[in-house]
Amino acid sequence: MKKILFTALASVLLLSTACSEKASDNDNQSNNTAAVINNIMTRTSIRKFTNQPIGADTLTSLVKAGMAAPTAVNKQPWSFIVVTEREVLDSLMNVHPYSNLATATAAIVVCGEMEKALDGFGRDYWIQDCSAATENILLAAHAYGLGAVWCGVYPNPNVIPGVKRVLSIPGAVTPLSLITLGHPADNPAPKDKWNPENVHYQKY
Amino acid sequence: MKKILFTALASVLLLSTACSEKASDNDNQSNNTAAVINNIMTRTSIRKFTNQPIGADTLTSLVKAGMAAPTAVNKQPWSFIVVTEREVLDSLMNVHPYSNLATATAAIVVCGEMEKALDGFGRDYWIQDCSAATENILLAAHAYGLGAVWCGVYPNPNVIPGVKRVLSIPGAVTPLSLITLGHPADNPAPKDKWNPENVHYQKY
Repeated sequence: MKKILFTALASVLLLSTACSEKASDNDNQSNNTAAVINNIMTRTSIRKFTNQPIGADTLTSLVKAGMAAPTAVNKQPWSFIVVTEREVLDSLMNVHPYSNLATATAAIVVCGEMEKALDGFGRDYWIQDCSAATENILLAAHAYGLGAVWCGVYPNPNVIPGVKRVLSIPGAVTPLSLITLGHPADNPAPKDKWNPENVHYQKY
Repeated sequence: MKKILFTALASVLLLSTACSEKASDNDNQSNNTAAVINNIMTRTSIRKFTNQPIGADTLTSLVKAGMAAPTAVNKQPWSFIVVTEREVLDSLMNVHPYSNLATATAAIVVCGEMEKALDGFGRDYWIQDCSAATENILLAAHAYGLGAVWCGVYPNPNVIPGVKRVLSIPGAVTPLSLITLGHPADNPAPKDKWNPENVHYQKY
């Protein structure tokens, strides 16, 4: 009887393994699609954080996500400043009063590098490139269960000089955004911004 | 013996269900994180497409992903034009020669709505808002297994007027990007843009 039992159990296990392997390719694809879409649709600004620090590996992963953004003519006209020291975060808060740095445990400042930018009208593509990088970092942070806010720096003339001074940013480099980061101490509902009136078909 | 066999099988099934339920929360979270990060890191421009059309629901989901992007002061100063008619795609190709519309089966044009934008220096945040929306659409397209390219329109003075004319875009609306879309007929390797020299810590 032991032998029969063993054979029966082995059959069940083999069968279930075979079934799950057969289905796994399609299932994984669907699960991955759903995970990505859900992550985009549920991301929202989180302004209050616990004092738990963010791991160095996670911060690096966020910067890598930023650098995976597309750039015009692949110029990659950017740099990223990762701030985790309380003193620097506090100094940034002094020069960017609308940021939520009070409880943030980290910040990433996304900068445009004018010397790597295109010439002529194409120069201003750095704004779009760095915006795509910023959005990638926000989405990656949400995927890690972190909270974040995109605090605008460029083109605010009241904020740019202070951020440059605090972070010793040289002349040909312009900070576009300051992303505040932390483990969420708040769980706000994502905004539903879907508005069919903003969609046109074939022509405006 | 049947009863014993049944009990044994039932136990195995119950046990495996219990184990998978116990592990599922953490596993799902890890899988979702990995899916999102992988989607960001593997997205790349795809310029050749098959003639298989993109479903209307998928196109709507892409626009919803665009509208989920954050905007400065939540102004949502944007509109989206979804183009699927061959004639309109061809007309766009004539006015945007660097786009890859020849085989694209759809395009989404992301526009800034100046009447919804902020005043003063804040007006130009529409560029960052529409760039974040464009990046969301690219990432969502990749998650659906579609190919896409971000073709710049604004601030190219050689392209903006033609795109506005073809799509009947009114004066106070500026097309920022033209996203070409289709089912991939090509499988290019994603660019590795990671460059540690572009990362600074605490200060520049």
